[in-house]
Amino acid sequence: MRKHNIFDIPWKTFQALPLEEKSAYLAHRDGTIYHTLFAQQFDEALLERLALLANAIRAIAKTRAGTAFLQSQVCHKRAMLYFSQPSSRTFLSFISACQILGMKTAEVRDTSISSEFKGESKEDSIRTFSSYFDLIIMRTPEKGLAEQMAWTLSNSDRPIPIINAGSGPDQHPTQALLDIYTLLRSFERRGGLRDRTVVFCGDLLRGRTVRSLSYLLTNFSNIRQIFVAPEPLQIAPDVLEILDKKGVSYACSNNLQAVIPEADAVYMTRIQDEWDKSKGESARIDTSHFKFGLNELALLSPRAIIMHPLPRRDEISTEVDGDPRAMYWRQMRNGMWIRTALIAMVFGCEHAILDYHRANF
Amino acid sequence: MRKHNIFDIPWKTFQALPLEEKSAYLAHRDGTIYHTLFAQQFDEALLERLALLANAIRAIAKTRAGTAFLQSQVCHKRAMLYFSQPSSRTFLSFISACQILGMKTAEVRDTSISSEFKGESKEDSIRTFSSYFDLIIMRTPEKGLAEQMAWTLSNSDRPIPIINAGSGPDQHPTQALLDIYTLLRSFERRGGLRDRTVVFCGDLLRGRTVRSLSYLLTNFSNIRQIFVAPEPLQIAPDVLEILDKKGVSYACSNNLQAVIPEADAVYMTRIQDEWDKSKGESARIDTSHFKFGLNELALLSPRAIIMHPLPRRDEISTEVDGDPRAMYWRQMRNGMWIRTALIAMVFGCEHAILDYHRANF
Amino acid sequence: MRKHNIFDIPWKTFQALPLEEKSAYLAHRDGTIYHTLFAQQFDEALLERLALLANAIRAIAKTRAGTAFLQSQVCHKRAMLYFSQPSSRTFLSFISACQILGMKTAEVRDTSISSEFKGESKEDSIRTFSSYFDLIIMRTPEKGLAEQMAWTLSNSDRPIPIINAGSGPDQHPTQALLDIYTLLRSFERRGGLRDRTVVFCGDLLRGRTVRSLSYLLTNFSNIRQIFVAPEPLQIAPDVLEILDKKGVSYACSNNLQAVIPEADAVYMTRIQDEWDKSKGESARIDTSHFKFGLNELALLSPRAIIMHPLPRRDEISTEVDGDPRAMYWRQMRNGMWIRTALIAMVFGCEHAILDYHRANF
Repeated sequence: MRKHNIFDIPWKTFQALPLEEKSAYLAHRDGTIYHTLFAQQFDEALLERLALLANAIRAIAKTRAGTAFLQSQVCHKRAMLYFSQPSSRTFLSFISACQILGMKTAEVRDTSISSEFKGESKEDSIRTFSSYFDLIIMRTPEKGLAEQMAWTLSNSDRPIPIINAGSGPDQHPTQALLDIYTLLRSFERRGGLRDRTVVFCGDLLRGRTVRSLSYLLTNFSNIRQIFVAPEPLQIAPDVLEILDKKGVSYACSNNLQAVIPEADAVYMTRIQDEWDKSKGESARIDTSHFKFGLNELALLSPRAIIMHPLPRRDEISTEVDGDPRAMYWRQMRNGMWIRTALIAMVFGCEHAILDYHRANF
Repeated sequence: MRKHNIFDIPWKTFQALPLEEKSAYLAHRDGTIYHTLFAQQFDEALLERLALLANAIRAIAKTRAGTAFLQSQVCHKRAMLYFSQPSSRTFLSFISACQILGMKTAEVRDTSISSEFKGESKEDSIRTFSSYFDLIIMRTPEKGLAEQMAWTLSNSDRPIPIINAGSGPDQHPTQALLDIYTLLRSFERRGGLRDRTVVFCGDLLRGRTVRSLSYLLTNFSNIRQIFVAPEPLQIAPDVLEILDKKGVSYACSNNLQAVIPEADAVYMTRIQDEWDKSKGESARIDTSHFKFGLNELALLSPRAIIMHPLPRRDEISTEVDGDPRAMYWRQMRNGMWIRTALIAMVFGCEHAILDYHRANF
Repeated sequence: MRKHNIFDIPWKTFQALPLEEKSAYLAHRDGTIYHTLFAQQFDEALLERLALLANAIRAIAKTRAGTAFLQSQVCHKRAMLYFSQPSSRTFLSFISACQILGMKTAEVRDTSISSEFKGESKEDSIRTFSSYFDLIIMRTPEKGLAEQMAWTLSNSDRPIPIINAGSGPDQHPTQALLDIYTLLRSFERRGGLRDRTVVFCGDLLRGRTVRSLSYLLTNFSNIRQIFVAPEPLQIAPDVLEILDKKGVSYACSNNLQAVIPEADAVYMTRIQDEWDKSKGESARIDTSHFKFGLNELALLSPRAIIMHPLPRRDEISTEVDGDPRAMYWRQMRNGMWIRTALIAMVFGCEHAILDYHRANF
């Protein structure tokens, strides 16, 4: 029953720990994932292991017998998707991941029609959900909520794992996973994810995907990071401090075209104006030079890739979509596969899947 | 095809019958449940039988082979959950019950996006649902609607069973089932549900769960009932009349601490201010002495239990949650198992499940 | 991979083609359906073939082994139901059709909680959905959107089929399918769908089901069409032009009782006041003579049938419901079976299902 260690520590103590130390409490005893709360839980070994599992799953899923095998893996478990913040993309990829593994699912999407209006506390709500399900996938606008709910559940009679599908402006760990998986996959037959230059461009201040990916890249050897943004949206100092501390090489710039030739990967992001503190705050910033079109494509190395977490507005011209270096649609589909791998690992199916893959492919 | 007798009687005649007489029309020919409309359908024998089935199901569900067996029971049927009144708890436990038995499900939760706006009658809507599904689980704010729909369907070309998941202020029969199941289970190794004192506390006037449970308890031998509430929220006279008629011993009180020592079970409820006739009506009532905290816990017999239909506000202090007598989280999970048992019985799977249990455990 | 031909043609060229010519681009290479966009895709041979398949499916579904066989047909695929326009009927029958074939489903019903608010284009949204699913069933208030999305997907890296479940005021092809299927089934043991008179009554101007059915009936030999409506809601001239061109016999009338004796089928429709251009526009029209009650029933041939696409208001009296000629409830259930047949055909299961039927019935 005691599958992991989060029991051993009071909430206030846990909450105050640095992310790296927290991570130890969130793992299964075998080092695999139990709760998935923040990108910092994943080191290079675990990322490579998840990518390998995702590769096996997508190969197995190509055959009809394979889909039946995958659907038998977690068909005895049920997942609850609690999405109080809108996100069709994350929602649909998670529900697909569950279905691929045979999990049954239920949804609470519009919390106004839930029983929360009866004055129940969030802790009670989450314990309710845990009464009926075996996994909770949650997305909320509140910072730290997934973490608190994981602690609450782990200290209840019926601990079940939580996957953070985005909590407030800080963490969206499975988005970071799919980004890393896309990079690993793109470079796997070309020397791997090392000695590369990754260019981030757009709203680097408020995009949580950039923060998480920047951190995860520090796990890999000699990855240079270049941050290209209009001044008011440039990457936050705390991200750079981490890079400094880890001895990672980086640069800041406001000239996309100038840095594109150096890039192995260009990671475009959209202006996150939903976090504007005053109306029209973002609209007053000149972002016209932070878009990727045919001119930028012409400057890009033939072996580099273009990424975007999607949804996009006009940061990447649709004229770029047909180029083989445009990786963002495959990146989105990668999200489904890496989430499938994550859930498979949470429920201890990693070895069965890898065995099946070895035996059949 | 003629599985039950509701055909034989016109709606107005049926509607005017006393609940006890109506019940005969709602059963399968073998005496098991067809439509589930009100708590009064369940006598002691049927309650014990459902509890036994629920016990078997939860034991079977502990093994992986068992979950597969359960999922094969009703996998050829599909259920429609029609929830026009919000309730995440009841909704999620029903959807879980369906999934445990392998039923496919579909939901209509927000009726504003249904085709009702096109001016269709409720009878036509329900016949529509029955065209596609094999079971309707419905929750509505309208008194008597589930009953009328059951009559309508039974008199259509395609009769299918209805389960009332809460209709207006009057009936919520599966909540009463889970309450009785929790009591049966709590006392099953200690002489059973007889010669006990049950204390009800809180908003007894408007909580339909209390009304139903009070009635169901009259099925069991020598169960004393004590009603503790502020004067304006005390139990309604018609409930007491039934107890009088059945010769059940009861008392009314406004002093929770005074009666706790006598209790085998304390059933706490929340103030149902959503039924307030004027704004702030409930807020003007002093409910401060109708809460269960550490002081009340100290007065409670070591073998008694604390129940609550949930969601709670502050009627039970979270400090009580860790006490082994706090039964409300298990009570909620019992709801999933007893609903699974009910659906299994409706679809005639009772004997197959009990046989499997005998053969494997 | 190149299963159909829509790749070969630019959007603007495709869009400008007449419907009959477009249809060739929407088929599988073997002539069966790939995208389902408009009623005009279906000729008599294909309609008969779908009806035969639907008959086989409903027969197979009567046995428990049969339901398991059907659920194995498309259990390796997942469908996305994108309903940005309310419709419980179409929604529930499609979800049922998917479940009958074992498909997993996910829904996006309220687009306000999707990520569209982040400024994503519809093309990007649909490519997102296609990343995770194998079929998109879409209903939107926008004319031509399903068509455009089908073209977009077919020209993407990951083409998947689209089924139009109603797009704006123009097309609702699966409604037309179920209407034809009901007619074929009603007359199949009585000489088939030929030499018949079909009376349409109600709001013929704005009901897309009438437009589609009128067109599909031109596929069958010697079907006379009579249009009965108040003047402002009479059938549009372009429909009559098609009948003229095809040499189909028809008449217009404002006297329902006068034409009922000639009818083999009476197709009643409701006033579509949701399309009113000004408030109360429909209410000012006298529709009192365009309803079907006991008086009309008395005039109807004993072998004729009464149809209605539902939902109804008062166009058909509930007193008519019990008459064996009232076909509208069966018509609705036919919708589930013909949609199941359509999806089975899209995924290439037609022959396996017909083989199973021949072997077992």
